[in-house]
Amino acid sequence: MIKVGIVGGTGYTGVELLRLLAQHPEAHVEIITSRSEDGVSVAEMYPNLRGHYDNLRFSVPDVQKLGACDVVFFATPHGVAHSMAAELLLTGVKIIDLSADFRLRDPQEWSKWYNQPHGAPELLAEAVYGLPEVNREAIKLARLIAVPGCYPTATQLGFLPLLEAGIADTAHLIADCKSGVSGAGRGANVPSLFCEATESMKAYGVAGHRHLPEIRQGLQLAAGQPVGLTFVPHLTPMIRGIHSSLYATVADTSIDLQALFEARYADEPFVDVMPAGSHPETRSVRGANVCRIAVHRPQGGDKVVVLSVIDNLVKGASGQAVQNMNILFNLDERAGLAHPAMMP
Amino acid sequence: MIKVGIVGGTGYTGVELLRLLAQHPEAHVEIITSRSEDGVSVAEMYPNLRGHYDNLRFSVPDVQKLGACDVVFFATPHGVAHSMAAELLLTGVKIIDLSADFRLRDPQEWSKWYNQPHGAPELLAEAVYGLPEVNREAIKLARLIAVPGCYPTATQLGFLPLLEAGIADTAHLIADCKSGVSGAGRGANVPSLFCEATESMKAYGVAGHRHLPEIRQGLQLAAGQPVGLTFVPHLTPMIRGIHSSLYATVADTSIDLQALFEARYADEPFVDVMPAGSHPETRSVRGANVCRIAVHRPQGGDKVVVLSVIDNLVKGASGQAVQNMNILFNLDERAGLAHPAMMP
Amino acid sequence: MIKVGIVGGTGYTGVELLRLLAQHPEAHVEIITSRSEDGVSVAEMYPNLRGHYDNLRFSVPDVQKLGACDVVFFATPHGVAHSMAAELLLTGVKIIDLSADFRLRDPQEWSKWYNQPHGAPELLAEAVYGLPEVNREAIKLARLIAVPGCYPTATQLGFLPLLEAGIADTAHLIADCKSGVSGAGRGANVPSLFCEATESMKAYGVAGHRHLPEIRQGLQLAAGQPVGLTFVPHLTPMIRGIHSSLYATVADTSIDLQALFEARYADEPFVDVMPAGSHPETRSVRGANVCRIAVHRPQGGDKVVVLSVIDNLVKGASGQAVQNMNILFNLDERAGLAHPAMMP
Amino acid sequence: MIKVGIVGGTGYTGVELLRLLAQHPEAHVEIITSRSEDGVSVAEMYPNLRGHYDNLRFSVPDVQKLGACDVVFFATPHGVAHSMAAELLLTGVKIIDLSADFRLRDPQEWSKWYNQPHGAPELLAEAVYGLPEVNREAIKLARLIAVPGCYPTATQLGFLPLLEAGIADTAHLIADCKSGVSGAGRGANVPSLFCEATESMKAYGVAGHRHLPEIRQGLQLAAGQPVGLTFVPHLTPMIRGIHSSLYATVADTSIDLQALFEARYADEPFVDVMPAGSHPETRSVRGANVCRIAVHRPQGGDKVVVLSVIDNLVKGASGQAVQNMNILFNLDERAGLAHPAMMP
Repeated sequence: MIKVGIVGGTGYTGVELLRLLAQHPEAHVEIITSRSEDGVSVAEMYPNLRGHYDNLRFSVPDVQKLGACDVVFFATPHGVAHSMAAELLLTGVKIIDLSADFRLRDPQEWSKWYNQPHGAPELLAEAVYGLPEVNREAIKLARLIAVPGCYPTATQLGFLPLLEAGIADTAHLIADCKSGVSGAGRGANVPSLFCEATESMKAYGVAGHRHLPEIRQGLQLAAGQPVGLTFVPHLTPMIRGIHSSLYATVADTSIDLQALFEARYADEPFVDVMPAGSHPETRSVRGANVCRIAVHRPQGGDKVVVLSVIDNLVKGASGQAVQNMNILFNLDERAGLAHPAMMP
Repeated sequence: MIKVGIVGGTGYTGVELLRLLAQHPEAHVEIITSRSEDGVSVAEMYPNLRGHYDNLRFSVPDVQKLGACDVVFFATPHGVAHSMAAELLLTGVKIIDLSADFRLRDPQEWSKWYNQPHGAPELLAEAVYGLPEVNREAIKLARLIAVPGCYPTATQLGFLPLLEAGIADTAHLIADCKSGVSGAGRGANVPSLFCEATESMKAYGVAGHRHLPEIRQGLQLAAGQPVGLTFVPHLTPMIRGIHSSLYATVADTSIDLQALFEARYADEPFVDVMPAGSHPETRSVRGANVCRIAVHRPQGGDKVVVLSVIDNLVKGASGQAVQNMNILFNLDERAGLAHPAMMP
Repeated sequence: MIKVGIVGGTGYTGVELLRLLAQHPEAHVEIITSRSEDGVSVAEMYPNLRGHYDNLRFSVPDVQKLGACDVVFFATPHGVAHSMAAELLLTGVKIIDLSADFRLRDPQEWSKWYNQPHGAPELLAEAVYGLPEVNREAIKLARLIAVPGCYPTATQLGFLPLLEAGIADTAHLIADCKSGVSGAGRGANVPSLFCEATESMKAYGVAGHRHLPEIRQGLQLAAGQPVGLTFVPHLTPMIRGIHSSLYATVADTSIDLQALFEARYADEPFVDVMPAGSHPETRSVRGANVCRIAVHRPQGGDKVVVLSVIDNLVKGASGQAVQNMNILFNLDERAGLAHPAMMP
Repeated sequence: MIKVGIVGGTGYTGVELLRLLAQHPEAHVEIITSRSEDGVSVAEMYPNLRGHYDNLRFSVPDVQKLGACDVVFFATPHGVAHSMAAELLLTGVKIIDLSADFRLRDPQEWSKWYNQPHGAPELLAEAVYGLPEVNREAIKLARLIAVPGCYPTATQLGFLPLLEAGIADTAHLIADCKSGVSGAGRGANVPSLFCEATESMKAYGVAGHRHLPEIRQGLQLAAGQPVGLTFVPHLTPMIRGIHSSLYATVADTSIDLQALFEARYADEPFVDVMPAGSHPETRSVRGANVCRIAVHRPQGGDKVVVLSVIDNLVKGASGQAVQNMNILFNLDERAGLAHPAMMP
């Protein structure tokens, strides 16, 4: 059994990690930390877990104890992994970081978007961006994995086949993305209140959202050149789900896009290219570690519309983190992640 | 008092008309028709109206009786107004049609999108497209008004300032639109069920939605030239609201877009250009006859993002219909429509 | 025009007061206070009010200025009205308090349930409990009105006919009540987050909720004797609405309960006794100052089930406050409150 | 592997059975029938199942083929199992019926509540009511199991400890129950539409609901005497979940109810008696085969309030059906049902 530690497990990605790991045949959660909830049992805070982790309590983070694990997940706000990663890596433990700390390769860029200096620039060279559909081989060898953000996962997986094939006009990419409210976390903020968020739709961060540089970085690597990306996130009245509607222009309208997408993801266990003409629903991936994609070219024109959906807490966070763990420890990549989505 | 008849009042636009007219100081509903609900009282079907229309019952449509009104609203599926309008106009009554029957100027185009012959092509020449912000003067003189659709209202009002000013690349317009479920009407269809529509987001009609030709027609008139429009509607888990996220490219990035939009709508009672940097929420117009708009140019680039929100049942249907009635009968344009939106 | 001041207008009852007063023909909001939002415009905080209160800004409370109004509404947490009422009453202004400060007649009881000493016991003798269906005459003469709570309004109106008629077993009354989330206010608390409150139902405060003594006090006055009441509130995933399901046992099963209820409320403008067999929905009163009630005796037995619904922010708070104002100033009791509920 | 057939798999209990059986280590779905969807693949109808049942298609029911299975689940409207059960039992297959067909022991009672003659009264003597917490031993030996309804499961499990211990006044039991909308099934009915059901709460069937006789039958067996039960179901704006709020009067207020409930369910794998003072949330059982219960005696009085929650599609239907299968085939009772609930 792989011994798992979780740093900062009181948020939604933390409880989702616990839900997924409860079903994992080869991993066991040894430690979960929280400074604010020290001593509280996990099942008291998350009654859905009653009967599953009855002896597990939150504790103050302790590098010695975490270092005795095989792998430590960070489910923390940005900045925390910066401050602990270097010391922890010395113990030989592997780190899978769900926060944004090691996603951007350029520490200046990170610093600009997160309004603080990068706290561990010396680790950036070895940090692996944990998108298995792009970096599977590097993940196998990593010590430090940066799990992609939710918008970046759905958006990159949707654009990749077009960019890798070099058929889209990279200067004018548009990503209109809709997220459930859990993407905002479990913090007690007025805009996340039920009465503020339900029965309404709004865009936010149009001037610039922190996932923009992350998405752009991934798209540029795929395209092998700079890309012009307009990214507009929207807050949608649902708990879970990201729906990325992606727009690109293609010069050659004779390409079989359906075949292109199917070929790109033929061997991917967690990317489902739906039949031509499909409109994936976010609920079709609720609770499951799947990205479902459909590709359209309306009325045979030069505009491609890609629809890409994930559960932001699973393929967009905790599920992808477990997928990374499976790859890292040479387990079946589907271990603990094989259950279907819940519908309705 | 203006004597009002309503044909087909059992759907959501029907009950919304009744709600708005109950507050109107100069209109009185004389007749409301429904073949299926003949004899049923309005208050029995819509308990929210108890105490307001206690003597009003649905009746079978009768041209004589409708003709004795001053104005007849059609809140019917497409095709019904085609079959009744010509005969009704002979009585001298004015017609305000909330359906799609007279929105497209080209009967062939209509026929192609609605899969049936146009039923009253001879009336198209005089039908006025009831978007007051464009056609106010024509509305004053009209006998037959085609109230715009919900997506078309939000989308046209958002794009108009750019197109009228001739500053957008008209070949690459994108409208990514999100609608509440009431846009699908009150028909008993599985996809509109609570358990199918809630907690999920999906695109639909990417290959071609009936509002596409209507929007394109309006944008082309504004631009004075053909436009290339990609329109993707999405079903959003909320009752009311349309959120149009509009994307255009501008060549000249020195134009003050905020000033342009404010000037365009300075005299419009029902278009609210929000302060620079705003993100309008659909709930801010819930129940009110308002379109709120914000215009952005992210990171000073050449992409303009316009955010435009309406309540699909009000400014996107019944409220706009009442606004047209007010203009047509030379009333205060705000009569019956002056109440604020309901939040939360 | 009646000059209105509002103390503490940043919560949901505050914005709802503003929404209702915007439509009121004889009242004008002169002042709205908030220490935390001093200087902020109302329309900035509540975009649904843009175009309605464009010159109104929150200001720090000032007894002089408030005293220059005709009436001051308190839309504050408990304790605030205690501290300001006495001084304010000296100016001659009338006070309508939406908080719990003057609802209980017994200061010891208040102190026990609110965990602090009662701050103005000397005013209790003259404070009038503002339930118009019980205290209309006293309201007309009041200086200080305590607007009933939301659960207490729905529950008392449902039980009153039975208790006044003396036909229910007063020892075993049960009120199983369901409230929308707005009842918890606009404070940033984890349990009120969208992701915590949506798609779930729970009871709370079973051991004792602050509305219990208020309801019991009202029921005892109606019954003329002590009552045994079990009150269980539930949090329901909707913004607005209270649904009280009330259970009582009657000895005499020959009484025509429908007639009893209809007679009791025959002259009440804001209580709607629905036809026999009805099941009122909370959405049928959304946004409207109405209580709809249905009374059942299942299978002809000795159990009476009363279903009573209100909008907690309207008849359960701000609407009832305006109704009290109308009575107090001898206006049409329906002024500003005559609009129908919004459905869907 | 146990060979499973499902009759009528197009509704919500059908897709939930498929979801649960996809995770079951010792069962395999061989056949799923639907007359209307003959030939359609399961994954096409339920995209959440893509990747899980890719070769499974709906087919017309065929007794021969179903008889070749080890067990057949009926996930059909009432009446269907009546017509097929006798013939099917002759093949030696076991039947687990999720419909109401064999829940009531008295065919006259069934006939009265379902408005049609009972179609297989000769099978009633051997049908076992599949509530494992009451009938586990009988289930092991059964040929024909009637899976309890959703309201009956939550309500019986909540009342049982009180009734078996003989401490409640059985003449005055009240069950105020709240159900998510999926309880109404996947039929295309107006009241189940998103715009009708969301943002509202209502009671229904107060005059008499079909689950009333089923609950009463179970309570009477537990109490060993007739019971007086008032049962009021409510439609709640959420997909899944039943919340039963149960009221009873006890004569002896010295009994330790917490201990009583804990002892009653100490060995039950799927009943969780929560700590004293708890308020179970329906989301804490979302997707899981668990009933969580809390027992209160407010203010030390003679009224007991029991709060009991289940997921209506799991412990209230398909999960309980699988639990019955596990017992029947002598498997680990938790097989396929061990995953935690999904929260948020």
